[in-house]
Amino acid sequence: MTTTDTTRNGVDTATLFATLDAVKQAPEAAKFQFRAHNEWVSGTHNRTTIADYFGVGEERSHEHTFVFDADHPAVLVGRDHGPTPVEFVLHALAACLTAGVASIAAARRIKLTEVRSTVTGDIDLNGLLGLNPGVRNGYEQITVRFTIKGDAPAEKLREIVEQSRARSAVYDIITNRMPVTIEVDTR
Amino acid sequence: MTTTDTTRNGVDTATLFATLDAVKQAPEAAKFQFRAHNEWVSGTHNRTTIADYFGVGEERSHEHTFVFDADHPAVLVGRDHGPTPVEFVLHALAACLTAGVASIAAARRIKLTEVRSTVTGDIDLNGLLGLNPGVRNGYEQITVRFTIKGDAPAEKLREIVEQSRARSAVYDIITNRMPVTIEVDTR
Repeated sequence: MTTTDTTRNGVDTATLFATLDAVKQAPEAAKFQFRAHNEWVSGTHNRTTIADYFGVGEERSHEHTFVFDADHPAVLVGRDHGPTPVEFVLHALAACLTAGVASIAAARRIKLTEVRSTVTGDIDLNGLLGLNPGVRNGYEQITVRFTIKGDAPAEKLREIVEQSRARSAVYDIITNRMPVTIEVDTR
Repeated sequence: MTTTDTTRNGVDTATLFATLDAVKQAPEAAKFQFRAHNEWVSGTHNRTTIADYFGVGEERSHEHTFVFDADHPAVLVGRDHGPTPVEFVLHALAACLTAGVASIAAARRIKLTEVRSTVTGDIDLNGLLGLNPGVRNGYEQITVRFTIKGDAPAEKLREIVEQSRARSAVYDIITNRMPVTIEVDTR
């Protein structure tokens, strides 16, 4: 069996199934820790470096070090050096659901030709500005609109999106409660 | 009063307070919609464009169009063209809390000299791989470790971080339930 035989949608399904089998044999291998290192620049502008992580029993590094700036636009008292933090959340959700769609379609032997999505988040800043205690700080609602095309009936394509949602890490993080601990060192 | 007089930590506090006053007079101005446009590339690799948003009553654009790639590393059956979606969530949290710290410190007339943070997320992939129904898809826990320095006592610096947490959009999105709707177009 060649790579071509097992690769669909750019997903090497032989590797995918081998990875699943390996984790079944050694569940500890699936324990990962991801990390983001952030440094304040000025005002609402700050910069995150993503490089190191832990997984499959050892410390690892991405093939490249990734650096991202975040800021507020001028209308929100920033200088627009990067997207706002809340826009990165929308990106993370789109990316997670889309990676899932490609992988699940490959596993189900469905060839995709197009997957696009627009994620919108509606937010009332009266919440985080402290002006209305009845308004939450975060988005009031998020909507994901997918356009998906491939060699399967519409119903099968919809089922792939539904299965991606059901297994999405970021969808879980956003839609359910997640414990977050904050520690502060002032030395 | 010059700009220098009102700018602390790179935050123009005169603009900050003027913005707060403007929103108090016209609460509708604080209704924003942020958007991320994602396109699948291949496998777990996909790309998000962030450019347009709605706020203060009209359609707006960032000064630049921002493009971000997301992928999985090889050990997770990807090609490492970008961070994983869950790493972008850690970045978003660090960026949101840090922007808040700078703004709140400026409003409290505290000059910051350093704000760094490392955000870690522990995830057991047995959840999203469907191998253990007792394990959730997302992070089991997230920890934020801040180092913060400025011209105020440690207790005041800690209070700034606490107030940033209490008003953070991304902290709210992650720690509380958020409604997410997914629509699929297969035409």
